[in-house]
Amino acid sequence: MRGMLAAGAMALAVMGCATKAVESAAPETGAWRSMGDVLAQSPASDWRALDPENTLYLELTRGRVIIELAPAFAPLHAANIKALAREGYFDGAAVVRVQDNYVAQWARPEESRRQIRAGRATLPAEFDRGAARAPFRPLADPDSYADEVGFSDGFPAARGGGRIWLAHCYGMVGAGRDNGADSGGGAELYAVIGHAPRHLDRNVTLVGRIVQGVELLSALPRGTGDLGFYVSAAERTPIRTMRVAADVPEAERVELETLRTDSASFRALVESRRFRREEWFASPTGRINLCNVPLPVRARNG
Amino acid sequence: MRGMLAAGAMALAVMGCATKAVESAAPETGAWRSMGDVLAQSPASDWRALDPENTLYLELTRGRVIIELAPAFAPLHAANIKALAREGYFDGAAVVRVQDNYVAQWARPEESRRQIRAGRATLPAEFDRGAARAPFRPLADPDSYADEVGFSDGFPAARGGGRIWLAHCYGMVGAGRDNGADSGGGAELYAVIGHAPRHLDRNVTLVGRIVQGVELLSALPRGTGDLGFYVSAAERTPIRTMRVAADVPEAERVELETLRTDSASFRALVESRRFRREEWFASPTGRINLCNVPLPVRARNG
Repeated sequence: MRGMLAAGAMALAVMGCATKAVESAAPETGAWRSMGDVLAQSPASDWRALDPENTLYLELTRGRVIIELAPAFAPLHAANIKALAREGYFDGAAVVRVQDNYVAQWARPEESRRQIRAGRATLPAEFDRGAARAPFRPLADPDSYADEVGFSDGFPAARGGGRIWLAHCYGMVGAGRDNGADSGGGAELYAVIGHAPRHLDRNVTLVGRIVQGVELLSALPRGTGDLGFYVSAAERTPIRTMRVAADVPEAERVELETLRTDSASFRALVESRRFRREEWFASPTGRINLCNVPLPVRARNG
Repeated sequence: MRGMLAAGAMALAVMGCATKAVESAAPETGAWRSMGDVLAQSPASDWRALDPENTLYLELTRGRVIIELAPAFAPLHAANIKALAREGYFDGAAVVRVQDNYVAQWARPEESRRQIRAGRATLPAEFDRGAARAPFRPLADPDSYADEVGFSDGFPAARGGGRIWLAHCYGMVGAGRDNGADSGGGAELYAVIGHAPRHLDRNVTLVGRIVQGVELLSALPRGTGDLGFYVSAAERTPIRTMRVAADVPEAERVELETLRTDSASFRALVESRRFRREEWFASPTGRINLCNVPLPVRARNG
């Protein structure tokens, strides 16, 4: 008998399991491919390079968190966050809050305030936008929060009433705000590190998503103050700097590409995950939640 | 203007905000109460004490994780895990795997195998059970994975085809298994620490949920091996012991109670969370996902 550790290794496998034909009603029986196979067989044209001008490097002592901005959804916030990054506003900022199953948040702590120069402190809310010209790959399965969900150019999104908006899935990044809808702007940012708080959708401006390094935020100690704020400055994780990738010397960049959500490979990936046919699965659900769909990112030429 | 840190503090408030009347169509306009008010006003009879005989203390160096077992759903596994705990099987076990946005898993590492005496190494799967006699408080909102979801005696659950099963929400605890459906048993356990992997529902036996201390697992460093396994023994978090609360001297116990999910207060809590009317919210969604419904736990007489 295999040891229990090996048993565990198989128990919750995400990738890499042997595949097996399973007799169950499903649209693609026989045609099923594992996610690993889908990705391995995807043509280069199904991938899109991240634009260095819309990529942020959040530099922590322990490593780099890479964020892809979503200027199509939050043009004002994306531009402002880049302006703030370029004026060095985040140099010496810190992760000031980590609330379990919710968010990690970074900002300049109270005692190290600094004047904003080229950027702006607040901006009009960008909670949603017109849906007419936005790309959208709908997901067939029901959603608890919206009548229609899917993917828009690599981001999880929801649609309704002629509007489209980003969804608060794991790893999404937003701009904290005060009670006024227009009181945010990007000087204070948060990342989702728990079960998707979708009740925040259309209530706060999402600006992008973490494409690499989310564990540098999600594994931080939780703050013990109200809402997960750290009670002492010593508990905070210092931020060395946050930079626009385009401003970083090429030798220090990480060139990444993401699977296009309008591609045939992505469609196959969604089906692969709706019907899990790896040998381990006893009964594939045939459904998937928006925030459980992987959005693959890999090194270019990697 | 309030400082940005204060702004942040309000930005994603979960509890404690001032309430405000909001004009929007909703079943309980005018009658809305904050979750804090619902809990403060709940009668003692709306709470249920945790049974020490079905409560586990997972003792880590940094603190105690408290788990409520679900013998109504997994009677064989609950009994076996208690038998294993009572024979000291988990003394010297370790958290061997932490996979970001997925699970933390604990077991006896390969090199410290030990014979199981009173307990059993494997058990028949307990993926679901007959729904006829199970309590169930349905949730009105749609779910991505099941036609009907709700709560059964304090646990998130789903129902269909005359069967009922526990749902893989954040903090739920399950018994890892090998490829065979009956290859688990409880000697290797995992806790969900990410967006609910509901595709595991009915594929692996859930045995209970963490009611206190989940952050002791969710904030652990992620493993860098396949599936989040640690690559070296030094990275593992040692487990001092796992005990049944009833076996622990009363002075060392934590007496907890949980809000009954069949109570009027819980019904009010669900409505409070479906329509968030705290001042911060620009547009309450009027919906909620099964795994976003809080399941309050508090100290008895606390």
